[in-house]
Amino acid sequence: MNTEPRLVEVRRNVLKENDHLARGLRERFRKARVRVISLVSSPGSGKTAFLEKTLTMLRDSYRVAALVGDLATDNDAMRLARSQVPVKQITTGTVCHLEAAMIDRALAGLNLAELDFLFIENVGNLVCPSSYDLGEDLRLVLLSVTEGEDKPLKYPTIFNSADVAVLTKIDLAAVVEFDDAAANRNIQAIRPGMQVFRVSAKTGEGLDKWSSFLTSRADRTNDRETMRIP
Amino acid sequence: MNTEPRLVEVRRNVLKENDHLARGLRERFRKARVRVISLVSSPGSGKTAFLEKTLTMLRDSYRVAALVGDLATDNDAMRLARSQVPVKQITTGTVCHLEAAMIDRALAGLNLAELDFLFIENVGNLVCPSSYDLGEDLRLVLLSVTEGEDKPLKYPTIFNSADVAVLTKIDLAAVVEFDDAAANRNIQAIRPGMQVFRVSAKTGEGLDKWSSFLTSRADRTNDRETMRIP
Repeated sequence: MNTEPRLVEVRRNVLKENDHLARGLRERFRKARVRVISLVSSPGSGKTAFLEKTLTMLRDSYRVAALVGDLATDNDAMRLARSQVPVKQITTGTVCHLEAAMIDRALAGLNLAELDFLFIENVGNLVCPSSYDLGEDLRLVLLSVTEGEDKPLKYPTIFNSADVAVLTKIDLAAVVEFDDAAANRNIQAIRPGMQVFRVSAKTGEGLDKWSSFLTSRADRTNDRETMRIP
Repeated sequence: MNTEPRLVEVRRNVLKENDHLARGLRERFRKARVRVISLVSSPGSGKTAFLEKTLTMLRDSYRVAALVGDLATDNDAMRLARSQVPVKQITTGTVCHLEAAMIDRALAGLNLAELDFLFIENVGNLVCPSSYDLGEDLRLVLLSVTEGEDKPLKYPTIFNSADVAVLTKIDLAAVVEFDDAAANRNIQAIRPGMQVFRVSAKTGEGLDKWSSFLTSRADRTNDRETMRIP
């Protein structure tokens, strides 16, 4: 018995349903004038540490919240809560990605109109999240220097689905003999012209550039007078 | 429209079919007296480097081969080929795990009766491979010290599906302030009694213990006179 064709067909319906929900979310985000940024990467790439720094940098000037997905535990929500920003954990059980319906449910208690930025940290996975639109404006793919320069070539779909790449843990670049030129070449081979940030949540290196990108882009794109908290 | 229940049902059929095929593979492996060891981990944990060292250590005394799964590229097969052991790449496209049917197809050119060890390197993913039995005797879950001590708690299913844990890149333990006791506590919380190896493919640390475990276990379990190449 070969059940694969039927699985593919059902999967396609799920994706169609997800795309439909994601379009609805994008429309809600646009109306509420909240900028939504999602983060994908493999487990242990440093998404949470990077996001904690980002939330902490933004919170004095902007109204910020975060959703964070994991199969199990609310460890990441507790870590992110240290930034003193509202954070909600989405526990997916055995599901290896977030879906638009999960985002929709998690938004229940949040007033989007009172937010400038909403961050969504996906489940740590370089495959599953790539096909699921979450209605975000910007998708970041993170890659730590300890993972190796070849990952964009080996996981092309997720690098292709993302808008911006962030090389994390660059404080370890020398000790792991990270080949930055090769990594960049591989990223550009998959996603020509992709912007690449290089950061260390530990030393703070590169976070200023990232922060400028984020705030300038938000201000420009949304053209909001209410963007900054008075 | 909620398509989830139907998806779950189809997925269950696929798994049933996979379990059936995996039972067949296990029987073939047993008859051929080949010991089959699979490796799972997140992307960039060092599966390929660890496997290359393992193949190189074993090849003078044992007849060894490897299958290696990736979404795209045959980079890993080329890296593993440096060990001068027969290696076959399985390219999965968008599928985030290996399945028994893929192993079955990849075995076409290999004479199992002429092998002592067959290694199967799964796609880098801490979620998808957990439900797919490949007919292996032993499943290793690898975790690099750079990924953080919390991963067993956040990806319990895959740690639970594995028989042995391998902490990799331990040469970096000090620089990333890896908390070995916490990691071990988390592994034991998910899989009580799980044996844990600590290795560095770079410095060679811990590889002797791993090698002894592998060969003693193989000799004992299979009780083979033909195990060692004369």
